[in-house]
Amino acid sequence: MTKPWSNLPHWLPLPATGFIPAVVQEADSGAVLMLVDLNREALERLAHTGRLHYYHPRQRKVVAKGEASGHFQEVVEVRLNCRGDQLLLRVRPFGGTCELGYLSCFFRRLTPEGWETADPKVFDPEAVYPEIAFSH
Amino acid sequence: MTKPWSNLPHWLPLPATGFIPAVVQEADSGAVLMLVDLNREALERLAHTGRLHYYHPRQRKVVAKGEASGHFQEVVEVRLNCRGDQLLLRVRPFGGTCELGYLSCFFRRLTPEGWETADPKVFDPEAVYPEIAFSH
Repeated sequence: MTKPWSNLPHWLPLPATGFIPAVVQEADSGAVLMLVDLNREALERLAHTGRLHYYHPRQRKVVAKGEASGHFQEVVEVRLNCRGDQLLLRVRPFGGTCELGYLSCFFRRLTPEGWETADPKVFDPEAVYPEIAFSH
Repeated sequence: MTKPWSNLPHWLPLPATGFIPAVVQEADSGAVLMLVDLNREALERLAHTGRLHYYHPRQRKVVAKGEASGHFQEVVEVRLNCRGDQLLLRVRPFGGTCELGYLSCFFRRLTPEGWETADPKVFDPEAVYPEIAFSH
């Protein structure tokens, strides 16, 4: 069966920068999980595996989401914006998204006193990321 | 009463580029509406009015969402990512978001045959944007 993401590189000319930003959203709950950049390699690996890959700014290379944590994300729908230069990837996540232990990287909320943590932790980052925990 | 967004410029140092990307999400439904960039002027105008302002790439200036269409968006929650360099703005939209007539700019979905329009139009862009309709 042809998956909806298997022909993504064919149908998506990249912007001149070589990167396209992608909002990653949990398909079932609608929660916004993170905002990442994809390049040609990330698009091709996503198309080949059906799992989210993106350019990791700290590691400066394309990574599979979950390659360190096991918290991979299956891409169930790919959407494109009106100008054709941004993606919305609707995913089914296995485990949390944020390396700090949260479901979403957007776990802080603005209050009159500043930023507060608004979400509960869903995993222990020291257990899941022993090599990189708290190195950033 | 102090609104949760009224002190946003104070609590948000901008990245060196002067711009911070912001995912705009409908607070009630969870729909991702658009992905925009905010600069200092946009943050200050958001903080002053409680309505979404952003840097419009085609107009090359900060605009109030809805200043041409009347489709403004009230910001009800401001979230920040783990690295402190991306925003998630949860809004209550009045009317559609996309200048092409859709609730969300991400109205196209990838199929094996390419991109298809997946959402219904919620307004007539020729009626709402008479000066700019179909100029882009």
